[in-house]
Amino acid sequence: MRIGVIGLGNMGAGIAANLIKAGHEVTVYNRSRPKVDALAAQGAQAADTVADACGGDVVLTMLADDNAVAGVTLGDDGIIASSGSDTVHISSSTISVGLSKRLTDAHGDAGQKFVAAPVFGRPEAAAAAALFVVAAGAADAVSVVTPVFDAIGQRTFVVAEDPSAANLVKLSGNFLIGSVIESLGEAMALVAKGGVDRHQYLDILTSTLFSAPVYKTYGGLIANEQFEPAGFAAPLGHKDIGLVLSAAEELRVPLPIASLLRDRFLRLLAEGGEQLDWSAISSLAAADAGTSDHSA
Amino acid sequence: MRIGVIGLGNMGAGIAANLIKAGHEVTVYNRSRPKVDALAAQGAQAADTVADACGGDVVLTMLADDNAVAGVTLGDDGIIASSGSDTVHISSSTISVGLSKRLTDAHGDAGQKFVAAPVFGRPEAAAAAALFVVAAGAADAVSVVTPVFDAIGQRTFVVAEDPSAANLVKLSGNFLIGSVIESLGEAMALVAKGGVDRHQYLDILTSTLFSAPVYKTYGGLIANEQFEPAGFAAPLGHKDIGLVLSAAEELRVPLPIASLLRDRFLRLLAEGGEQLDWSAISSLAAADAGTSDHSA
Amino acid sequence: MRIGVIGLGNMGAGIAANLIKAGHEVTVYNRSRPKVDALAAQGAQAADTVADACGGDVVLTMLADDNAVAGVTLGDDGIIASSGSDTVHISSSTISVGLSKRLTDAHGDAGQKFVAAPVFGRPEAAAAAALFVVAAGAADAVSVVTPVFDAIGQRTFVVAEDPSAANLVKLSGNFLIGSVIESLGEAMALVAKGGVDRHQYLDILTSTLFSAPVYKTYGGLIANEQFEPAGFAAPLGHKDIGLVLSAAEELRVPLPIASLLRDRFLRLLAEGGEQLDWSAISSLAAADAGTSDHSA
Amino acid sequence: MRIGVIGLGNMGAGIAANLIKAGHEVTVYNRSRPKVDALAAQGAQAADTVADACGGDVVLTMLADDNAVAGVTLGDDGIIASSGSDTVHISSSTISVGLSKRLTDAHGDAGQKFVAAPVFGRPEAAAAAALFVVAAGAADAVSVVTPVFDAIGQRTFVVAEDPSAANLVKLSGNFLIGSVIESLGEAMALVAKGGVDRHQYLDILTSTLFSAPVYKTYGGLIANEQFEPAGFAAPLGHKDIGLVLSAAEELRVPLPIASLLRDRFLRLLAEGGEQLDWSAISSLAAADAGTSDHSA
Repeated sequence: MRIGVIGLGNMGAGIAANLIKAGHEVTVYNRSRPKVDALAAQGAQAADTVADACGGDVVLTMLADDNAVAGVTLGDDGIIASSGSDTVHISSSTISVGLSKRLTDAHGDAGQKFVAAPVFGRPEAAAAAALFVVAAGAADAVSVVTPVFDAIGQRTFVVAEDPSAANLVKLSGNFLIGSVIESLGEAMALVAKGGVDRHQYLDILTSTLFSAPVYKTYGGLIANEQFEPAGFAAPLGHKDIGLVLSAAEELRVPLPIASLLRDRFLRLLAEGGEQLDWSAISSLAAADAGTSDHSA
Repeated sequence: MRIGVIGLGNMGAGIAANLIKAGHEVTVYNRSRPKVDALAAQGAQAADTVADACGGDVVLTMLADDNAVAGVTLGDDGIIASSGSDTVHISSSTISVGLSKRLTDAHGDAGQKFVAAPVFGRPEAAAAAALFVVAAGAADAVSVVTPVFDAIGQRTFVVAEDPSAANLVKLSGNFLIGSVIESLGEAMALVAKGGVDRHQYLDILTSTLFSAPVYKTYGGLIANEQFEPAGFAAPLGHKDIGLVLSAAEELRVPLPIASLLRDRFLRLLAEGGEQLDWSAISSLAAADAGTSDHSA
Repeated sequence: MRIGVIGLGNMGAGIAANLIKAGHEVTVYNRSRPKVDALAAQGAQAADTVADACGGDVVLTMLADDNAVAGVTLGDDGIIASSGSDTVHISSSTISVGLSKRLTDAHGDAGQKFVAAPVFGRPEAAAAAALFVVAAGAADAVSVVTPVFDAIGQRTFVVAEDPSAANLVKLSGNFLIGSVIESLGEAMALVAKGGVDRHQYLDILTSTLFSAPVYKTYGGLIANEQFEPAGFAAPLGHKDIGLVLSAAEELRVPLPIASLLRDRFLRLLAEGGEQLDWSAISSLAAADAGTSDHSA
Repeated sequence: MRIGVIGLGNMGAGIAANLIKAGHEVTVYNRSRPKVDALAAQGAQAADTVADACGGDVVLTMLADDNAVAGVTLGDDGIIASSGSDTVHISSSTISVGLSKRLTDAHGDAGQKFVAAPVFGRPEAAAAAALFVVAAGAADAVSVVTPVFDAIGQRTFVVAEDPSAANLVKLSGNFLIGSVIESLGEAMALVAKGGVDRHQYLDILTSTLFSAPVYKTYGGLIANEQFEPAGFAAPLGHKDIGLVLSAAEELRVPLPIASLLRDRFLRLLAEGGEQLDWSAISSLAAADAGTSDHSA
């Protein structure tokens, strides 16, 4: 297939590379040029503008946030203005449910197809074509783009016809990670004040019921109380919990743990934690126990 | 070693059987006789009284709660009254930090040794000698009883010299399970109201970052909204969260998620949920979203 | 002074009437005409358009929400487009801090003066010229409009030069009322389940430390469990708590009770409580205690 | 009537003095002697032991906490051991619902009458016979002791036949005060970060809907951020919120704001706030907003 990829960060670059490897005809666009050149060296065609990446069967966007996606899609010379009715737009960014609905409507008004397909997995998984893809959209559109998902991920979950449902699933996953961070922060504050070594405690947890990657990865950060450099910075965590709460507001679903997480992030940021990893909210439980100085 | 085992429920019976298999000389006591007979058939010596189980090198208790353990240990003709200074009492029950401290003091006053060694693992793991043992106590006492741990578990973690630290770790584990239940309940209420199938959602979670047993086991119950029959009844969950909060109160550690869990259990019980599994607190999030009737 | 009044609801009508009584030259505008005629009968000049109400020294707006105020102010033929640089716009509506900042900037760009002056007091107080006015704005602008405040209220508090500070104070007042409702709901659920009559309990409270109007008014509603007809409907309470949380988000101030209130409102609305008074969130505490059916 | 008064702190001394003034025959007992002598100078008879204060129609206790009341009532040579079946024990201390039930049972077993009658009011109100008395007990017992209430208070509320209901009301009052402290702390953190003066803000509140003593008294402490010397120390506030939560646990009533208050007190105490007034929990909201250093 002829595929445009817009956004060549850590995730997008791996995705584009795997699309090339799978034999697709890939055109790439990125705001800063060096990343485009790196992909061109792997066989991609370089696009100078968003519009140049929009002529094919599919255009896939993998960008930082709502603003970036809205700008690239809705703006003058954006994807909608530059695509025909046969192009399917796959949005893989972590965006709000609200924006996903707006994009669905805008593409629909233009007679175009829109599929939301956020992914679970880190940059290494993107590079290894081992992402998990959560897709939602009209059945015919999803069907058309299945080869794209096959090329970039190890498994695809099609969850609904309404694209925004996929975004909701992705956001809820970040909410669950935040819940793990907070609960581990509380548990470690408790056992550490009771005289138990935090690393040994984590070893017990991950050897038993809590053997999942999320406990190993974040548990290690929390046990080490090392929150710099940030893998995923606190303002991004704050933003995503805000998006979860907005979606929940719209659907009228009270989420008490999400409310707690929001308050934790506000406090961390009010105290100067902009540069810290989002798992640093765990330090607040230790601070409240009087056992840690969490100053950023 | 000569070992008395007091308490032959699902966990204690498996433990006693494995001690026999490992070649130890095991005497067993249980309040109701049939369970004693079953172990006697496997080679144990039957004790008619608690005191009869107390003559050896070790006496291990595996009972339902604080009251049972306190009764058997501190009462007339109890373990303390019936043991010499060479016997080590291993307490494997899930009891309060407060009782663990009382038992430590009482054994100390009697010149006896006390080791707390709660376990992680279900009855099947107990039967398979595959428990994880979290032990705490004076180094010499722990050293003496290491063969006991080797016979019943796949791995032992010695966490502190103060026995109650092991109980704190065990209780904190139940707090973390409770946190998983609550956060899954909230996340499922959200995505379900957004049109996503709960079972498919769970499949996504457990295929990716949340691959641990705790998510699979409790996620299944929550997705099915099936809370009867109870694997671990709501009043027991309520009790354990209460024990976590009491320990945290003593140590002065605020635990906002534990406070939330306590309120959830109070509500579930006030609404008549005595017979339900403790994972039924997840249904409250769905009820608050207006998408489920959680009436017990 | 020559004063335009836009918005003749229960509050605006009383304000306009008192401005007339104080001898000001008052022009009134309202979307529906009968209210205009009623004021005209008291001596006001009737305006057919927003622009017609904008020619004088002051234009005061008293409208339902952000949308209404933004529409009237920023739209074509709105206040900004229709006023000169000598007119001061007094905004007395309960609006968001964000809109107040936008209006401040927009008037500033147009060389115009903007004062935020939300009021405390019910329609009866508006009719009796007994409002409490909380004003904020540039000192010269506030000084110009002081006679307006004198005519409509019993006391004016000038809190800051940044107009949005007055809106923040007003919103925080609604947050405090919400806190009283929630805490009374919890306390009454507790003592009622303990066998105490709710009305007698309220009598005790308001005879002692809690003698303020807010306890009497809302306590009565809560004790009676009578939430219809709504004095201030639940969706409005929900909206105002949302505005408080947005302002707090912007300022990075965690407000755990406001988060709780937000979750309460979401639940009340998810369960169908649209028509109820906002004090109906108190019924959720009783429902959770199993002592009340709070179905809307 | 012949009345024994046990406990001559700030409250008890005022109560005893007013009973003397009303013409009753008063015998007083206190652990430290000087306070006894002061009352003797006003006409009381001095008792050397608890038993010596127990011979009359009524014995009223006004002591610090559960321990003190239980010791004086249930111990050897305590009130129960030293009283006949005609004596009514009035307990005016702020004690737990649980202890109140124990005392009710113990007096009942001894064929004696027990009335719980905690009071609302500060030491000045006790001195001025202006307390509010919240009484509960068997109707005949309450009827007998009405002259006592008339002598010490301005008004008596008889709330139930079960004495512990009166204790529940008293404790719930402290919960409501705690709720006011927390909500004011949050509101002031918000408006102060938004540029509004805390004292002016309090003036606005107490001039309008929030004119009750509780807002004036605690609002002043919070606006001043002056928490020493303590009028009511943080550990006492912590204890009372714990008693509220225990009563709610027993009755199965979730109280989310009480859970929040408990976490606030734990944090304040963990950070070293033992000497501070209980209103110092308000400083935590300011600390979390990054606008105040709340270090004790």
